[in-house]
Amino acid sequence: MSLKIYVDFALTPELLERLKAGTQGHELILPKKPASVLSLGEIEPSFYEADIAFGQPITEAIEKAESLKWIQVSSSGVTRYDTPEFRSFASSKGIKLSNSASVFNDACADHTLSFMLAQSRKLPQGLASTTANGTDEWNQLRSGSVSLRGQSAIILGYGAIGKRLAELLAPFEMKLSAYRRTPRGDEGMPVIDAESLPAALAETDHIINILPDSQATQQFFDATRFAQCKPGSVFYNIGRGTTVDQSALAQALSDGPIREAWLDVTDPEPLPADHQLRQLPNCFITPHTAGGHANEAESCIDHFLRNLQLFTDGKEPNDRVI
Amino acid sequence: MSLKIYVDFALTPELLERLKAGTQGHELILPKKPASVLSLGEIEPSFYEADIAFGQPITEAIEKAESLKWIQVSSSGVTRYDTPEFRSFASSKGIKLSNSASVFNDACADHTLSFMLAQSRKLPQGLASTTANGTDEWNQLRSGSVSLRGQSAIILGYGAIGKRLAELLAPFEMKLSAYRRTPRGDEGMPVIDAESLPAALAETDHIINILPDSQATQQFFDATRFAQCKPGSVFYNIGRGTTVDQSALAQALSDGPIREAWLDVTDPEPLPADHQLRQLPNCFITPHTAGGHANEAESCIDHFLRNLQLFTDGKEPNDRVI
Repeated sequence: MSLKIYVDFALTPELLERLKAGTQGHELILPKKPASVLSLGEIEPSFYEADIAFGQPITEAIEKAESLKWIQVSSSGVTRYDTPEFRSFASSKGIKLSNSASVFNDACADHTLSFMLAQSRKLPQGLASTTANGTDEWNQLRSGSVSLRGQSAIILGYGAIGKRLAELLAPFEMKLSAYRRTPRGDEGMPVIDAESLPAALAETDHIINILPDSQATQQFFDATRFAQCKPGSVFYNIGRGTTVDQSALAQALSDGPIREAWLDVTDPEPLPADHQLRQLPNCFITPHTAGGHANEAESCIDHFLRNLQLFTDGKEPNDRVI
Repeated sequence: MSLKIYVDFALTPELLERLKAGTQGHELILPKKPASVLSLGEIEPSFYEADIAFGQPITEAIEKAESLKWIQVSSSGVTRYDTPEFRSFASSKGIKLSNSASVFNDACADHTLSFMLAQSRKLPQGLASTTANGTDEWNQLRSGSVSLRGQSAIILGYGAIGKRLAELLAPFEMKLSAYRRTPRGDEGMPVIDAESLPAALAETDHIINILPDSQATQQFFDATRFAQCKPGSVFYNIGRGTTVDQSALAQALSDGPIREAWLDVTDPEPLPADHQLRQLPNCFITPHTAGGHANEAESCIDHFLRNLQLFTDGKEPNDRVI
């Protein structure tokens, strides 16, 4: 069965070659104006003939695409598709949607652990210091380093990244718990529900926010939520910036209870230079690089090709979302 | 049996209380001019009556102390005692010497992993960047992040810190090997000897130097050794600064083969502001804070008290060196 595959993003000659080699027997449709992974491309008429879309097609176009059977999203985030309306539409049409979480999970988990250890070891402060042994500054750097060992952490939006992070954290013997939309019983740690979240936050040292962006998670961390957190706790965000009320976070960083924030995502990205979070010495921000890694694009193509094989075999694609 | 215990460093009232509570039945001798952990104190006459010394007593005084049976060094490093002459002297007198490695192992291993992940995730560069998604800078930050997964690392000076580091690295499934003075067969990884070290370095991505300072390790990493390293490898030092020829390291960072250096120790400490290593954008330095942690002093006292119990029971102290 020859399928028409619409690929909406720019490919280097090497990546195109890799994709062509893996899709022999099928027809690749490449738009004249491709999108980047995080920006919209123009939808061209050929999209409406496609059986498969690979990239970030807009929902308005999908709703008019009569032949479409499967969408492989090229990112981990699926914000634009994660609405009750679109889920219902896709289900009714039998359109499957998978994301590329597998491509980014390891890197996101690594990035989160790098945040946790950088705060534990006071790395930004240490790297900026040229102090001598025995000074007050030196003693503060050393005594301010608090081991992760035995501390508690809650992973909000527990999925593949959280699972991988839990594996990386295992040697630290932390008290881990998870908060997720739909507990599945395979978390291997206590799962917190909405009702018990305030009590859990009040006792947790590390709050790891990997919540996706959706209608239900908009400003999930607001002033009320931050006020529930344990004094001195550390807040991490490697999910989406929109899940945090950033003014409330700035307040919680200035007046407590949050001791430090480590953010890979903000709203907007990048934050303006004069944004209040940028002025705070206890707020550390990387520019949405958590999922990045060498061979990212190749891995994304390979993930698609594995899923294409599963799709043509009539099996479930990996990382299926809808 | 009441023992005389000479403690040569300064104690806060709380620490003194903790020490007194744990040494009831024995006699504490506190000098009028105590030392800090890393500087010399004055040896007072009462030292020569002591059965036990806790701190950093100088070897010249130890050689004149007739009653001394056990020295508990308050640091992990034992440089001043690690000479053939002193080892021979102590052995002949039946003086035991233990260090406080257990107090610092976890923190040193954490610090090393924080270095490894900060380089893997390009954390210093990411934290300094305010770039937008999709820019060249952003793509370079993402594609420059190389996972530790499947990479190779050699731990030089494999002891308690190396063992703990190996536990922390287990989830990354790296190819680990060890280089140590006396292989014991319990390393759980290939042990490299001096003869095979050049070939091993030529294939290793991460060179983790935890060598102690001794006559045998002075400038262990010199121009010849660096020239043996794999192009693009990363060099870490959390042992002692004296084990590295710093000019050779600067050269190796400028012209290859070393891609990045992450140092917690230098020679001297701190390095002068105009030192060539400080001018290099691929050299990252923390000011000898790797072993530090909250409750460091309490842990050090508790470690001594556990060892005191072992000593009075006629058992081997933990972390015995001589």
